[in-house]
Amino acid sequence: MATLERWLLPDGIEEVLPQEAALIEVARRQVLDLFAAWGYEYVVTPHIEFLDSLLTGVGQELALRTFSVTDPLSGQLMGFRADITPQVARLDAHSLRREGPSRLCYAGSVVHTRARDSSNSRSPIQIGAELYGDASAAADIEIISLMLETLQHAGVEQVHLDLGHVGIYRALAKAAGVSSELEELLFDALQRKAVSEVRELTAGLDVQLAGMLNALSSLCGNYTEVVKRAYELLDQAPGEVTEALADLEKVTSAIKQRYPDLFIYLDLSELRGYNYHTGVVFAAFVPSVGQAIAQGGRYDDIGAVFGRSRPATGFSTDLKTVVSLGRKIEVVNKGAIWAPLRSDAQLWQLMQQLRSEGERVIQALPGQELPDAQQAAGCDRQIEWQNNSWCVNKISF
Amino acid sequence: MATLERWLLPDGIEEVLPQEAALIEVARRQVLDLFAAWGYEYVVTPHIEFLDSLLTGVGQELALRTFSVTDPLSGQLMGFRADITPQVARLDAHSLRREGPSRLCYAGSVVHTRARDSSNSRSPIQIGAELYGDASAAADIEIISLMLETLQHAGVEQVHLDLGHVGIYRALAKAAGVSSELEELLFDALQRKAVSEVRELTAGLDVQLAGMLNALSSLCGNYTEVVKRAYELLDQAPGEVTEALADLEKVTSAIKQRYPDLFIYLDLSELRGYNYHTGVVFAAFVPSVGQAIAQGGRYDDIGAVFGRSRPATGFSTDLKTVVSLGRKIEVVNKGAIWAPLRSDAQLWQLMQQLRSEGERVIQALPGQELPDAQQAAGCDRQIEWQNNSWCVNKISF
Repeated sequence: MATLERWLLPDGIEEVLPQEAALIEVARRQVLDLFAAWGYEYVVTPHIEFLDSLLTGVGQELALRTFSVTDPLSGQLMGFRADITPQVARLDAHSLRREGPSRLCYAGSVVHTRARDSSNSRSPIQIGAELYGDASAAADIEIISLMLETLQHAGVEQVHLDLGHVGIYRALAKAAGVSSELEELLFDALQRKAVSEVRELTAGLDVQLAGMLNALSSLCGNYTEVVKRAYELLDQAPGEVTEALADLEKVTSAIKQRYPDLFIYLDLSELRGYNYHTGVVFAAFVPSVGQAIAQGGRYDDIGAVFGRSRPATGFSTDLKTVVSLGRKIEVVNKGAIWAPLRSDAQLWQLMQQLRSEGERVIQALPGQELPDAQQAAGCDRQIEWQNNSWCVNKISF
Repeated sequence: MATLERWLLPDGIEEVLPQEAALIEVARRQVLDLFAAWGYEYVVTPHIEFLDSLLTGVGQELALRTFSVTDPLSGQLMGFRADITPQVARLDAHSLRREGPSRLCYAGSVVHTRARDSSNSRSPIQIGAELYGDASAAADIEIISLMLETLQHAGVEQVHLDLGHVGIYRALAKAAGVSSELEELLFDALQRKAVSEVRELTAGLDVQLAGMLNALSSLCGNYTEVVKRAYELLDQAPGEVTEALADLEKVTSAIKQRYPDLFIYLDLSELRGYNYHTGVVFAAFVPSVGQAIAQGGRYDDIGAVFGRSRPATGFSTDLKTVVSLGRKIEVVNKGAIWAPLRSDAQLWQLMQQLRSEGERVIQALPGQELPDAQQAAGCDRQIEWQNNSWCVNKISF
């Protein structure tokens, strides 16, 4: 590598310099404090673990985004986390083993082999919350509310909410007896709203169910209208479908009650997520960004492959995105105090006292003069020797 | 993998459950706030970057501890950071490009292919501070003080300080004209205090310099005594050696002035660090732990391979270690408020208001009764409907 190239970071891998890092740290604390106020407990999952634990049950897409290496100790394959949600689900099911509902949250970097979207980032800071042990709409309502609160606290404006329910598609596909291969193709075609492809793929199926599967692509738009049309079009569907629909309606109307001004877009062919979702799925959008800025959903089956299935719903977002879209956080500039370069016990005591009182105290290094105090370190006061003691005085430039 | 094995984490890779995670989060904020009070600015470095950038100039030991993968986008080798210090040095030298001194700090996970010490952890949370642009003892004094303050704030007791100076050994080896291969062997033997090996390895060298190299192993102990003996034994050494010794004396006496009760152990054959240190090196120990709990030193040359050399000194520690050794942090239990499961606009408003006032409010999920409030969520109050309004009342169990 030439000298110049050694400076470069890989595409989509970012470092964060002081000004932005300060904003990210403030936002991180605000979000974690918000989660705590809702009863969510913070946990820390490892950056690396056995690939099999990391990827079982989460689908091919996540597997392709995950870097893997061989563990020199065990000889087994390990992966670097590309998503924290499955880790927290495992932690809840195995390490905590609580009987009742459990609220957990996390914040940390993930790495992707390829960027997930047009933002091009391969190193987002994922922050999110998960609610385990409750299969009802109440849990989904809480999680969606918390997602909206998170964005509101950060000052992200003009948020709108997309809602879907993968259970509707899954139940229809199951009733039609489609093979897992066809289910995958159909899933993909529906998500792209490739109407003619969906028609071709469903050609050999039971006519009524095929009609309903085709209808899904058109079931999107304003929520009251979509729910009404869905009840009509899916009237003859299996019980699971109407249950899912009722579930979705319950969630949507509760959110609408809490956030009357929020624009809610319902889309029954929206099947987002890493193939692991099982129920309500949702995402938040803002007009200026082409992809979801926060997303989540229900994923009840993820623990099954580990032998302990727990109902689960959760959301996550990228802290960097939230900070870049949010209100310019007012980092209060309290100024700072410049201390002279002296090894004097009384000076040291004063510096330590000021620091413990929350002041920023910067001591001069050899060759640094007073102008450096303001230019480099933003100092507005200085410590001076006056009348036989050290005093803090305003700097007059 | 059998179901049971999927639960397992690789050796030395840990997850952190709620109780400990809360302590780690509190400690993280305290340490970063302390760093800020000393004028250190927070930065975030990536978890993965080109191996060549990550490892150039840092020595073989770190390279062996670093996991590497091929970047599918560029085809180049990338590594997962096993140490944050070299990343911050690069960020300072290249991305910030400040002229004067620069104070930076960081906190984040690193991963190691093999545990560094008997703690067996391969996933410490590294937290540290670095001071760039000043080559004087003042910078080392500041960094060592900050390391001691960090441990003191966390309530780690009975800390003692080890101090050395790799410049003394380097200058003697250079003057004796030893090959880089021999320098490496000698380095290794000295660090292990393998006296007879050192004698054999120095047998062919200039007698006087060989004598001084051999003397290094014996130059350890209480600082005033060691400094005195070192000046005698290294009296005829090249100028660089006596300069380094004067430097070390200056740092030691300044630290002693600030921390009169601190036990300081000087060791001139202590050459810790990933081969990248160039001056004063130091480490903090406590009686109950076999290895250093925090360490650092001067590493002036690290930027040279990138074409911009900046003087640098810094320290780091593992947040998990600090929390486990520190004072039991009093996480103030403010209790929490239990809210009934109702979709009521006024109830929602009250919950939101209480949360914004810093209260923890947990809403019941279907099937949860009042006993769950205290058992699972630690609630001491509940929201009840009384006299036509929602009120917060104490729970009487």
